[in-house]
Amino acid sequence: MTDPLTIWTFDWVPEGRSGPRGYVRDIRLRWACEEAGLDYQVRSVPFKERGAEHFSRQPFGQVPFIQDGGITMFESGACLLYLARKSEKLMPRDPGGEAETLEWTIAALNSIELVTVPWWFLGMSSDTSNALDHWVINRLKKLDAVLGQREWLAAGRFTVADILMADVLRIPKVLVAGDFPAVRSYVDRSCARPAFKKAYDGQMAHFAAGGLPLPP
Amino acid sequence: MTDPLTIWTFDWVPEGRSGPRGYVRDIRLRWACEEAGLDYQVRSVPFKERGAEHFSRQPFGQVPFIQDGGITMFESGACLLYLARKSEKLMPRDPGGEAETLEWTIAALNSIELVTVPWWFLGMSSDTSNALDHWVINRLKKLDAVLGQREWLAAGRFTVADILMADVLRIPKVLVAGDFPAVRSYVDRSCARPAFKKAYDGQMAHFAAGGLPLPP
Repeated sequence: MTDPLTIWTFDWVPEGRSGPRGYVRDIRLRWACEEAGLDYQVRSVPFKERGAEHFSRQPFGQVPFIQDGGITMFESGACLLYLARKSEKLMPRDPGGEAETLEWTIAALNSIELVTVPWWFLGMSSDTSNALDHWVINRLKKLDAVLGQREWLAAGRFTVADILMADVLRIPKVLVAGDFPAVRSYVDRSCARPAFKKAYDGQMAHFAAGGLPLPP
Repeated sequence: MTDPLTIWTFDWVPEGRSGPRGYVRDIRLRWACEEAGLDYQVRSVPFKERGAEHFSRQPFGQVPFIQDGGITMFESGACLLYLARKSEKLMPRDPGGEAETLEWTIAALNSIELVTVPWWFLGMSSDTSNALDHWVINRLKKLDAVLGQREWLAAGRFTVADILMADVLRIPKVLVAGDFPAVRSYVDRSCARPAFKKAYDGQMAHFAAGGLPLPP
């Protein structure tokens, strides 16, 4: 007998007014499973002592992550899109409906949550500028640890994940904020690809032409 | 003859030291097309006067968005995942490799960019707290306009995009920051679903039990 889909979360989080109980992101995956009638179980990792095994499954030391047969996956948004493939109740199957579901899932992550999380997270801080520095340095440190051990992020090869991550990291100010040699060399080797150069030159030519269509 | 895949971007953006030329996110989609050898063309919408037609295709008034046959799609991350389905050069086809590509694509958007964008964007501001308020209110206003005209975000029905968006919006402080009646009623009707209640009760019971497995 194989285990059902397993959602991993913390064993404990603080209670009370500003505690995250009821808001930990495993709720997103529980919710999706409940909507779709998917069988699942929930397992815990320690909140207070996050060990190497936890970081090997979630490189930023967060939750949730899932296990499903041979697949493990972190990032609640990715897990939701993964679950959506299992049930038509979570995403329609026609190309147009699927495209709309995908765009709005990403909009929730990158157009709304990208703004609301800083709003409440930094709003709790008395020294916003310091809090921002800490936040970015901490996150890049963890990414640097990952990139110190692999050439590309996913599947042992260059993928669309590298296009996105490298572009996110290109803004040079972020890279000089700390000592992240693996991040830096990752961005360098990504942007050394001929396809990046063509894309970059294409964008610069587009704006130089005032946005008019360029000859092929 | 049908048009090739069309990437829409602005006709013009500011130049110079802090101007975004070379960083506008259409570059992500150009890059992916160049890697995969996909045929594409680039078209422009005005940067300075963003009209109703633009907002109908990108509800936050941004770029890029794409058109491909009958599909239109915004959010660069969503477009990248869409393009990745067209070419094995952008994403492997085995389930494990696809899962890894998906999780790292979302990690770039939600674990790294969610931190780096506030870092540079708010770092440019002299009054961070005010800038944060403006940012969140502006974004929610645009979302409120969308939700004033539809019950669910995508495909005319409840999808995984609503699970994610409603959960992002649940943090009550965000909702009291301004007058967003459509957002508010959207969150209410989402959280009134029995599946949400089961997920919420499940999480609360999990933490009350100290993270130990609960009887089914």
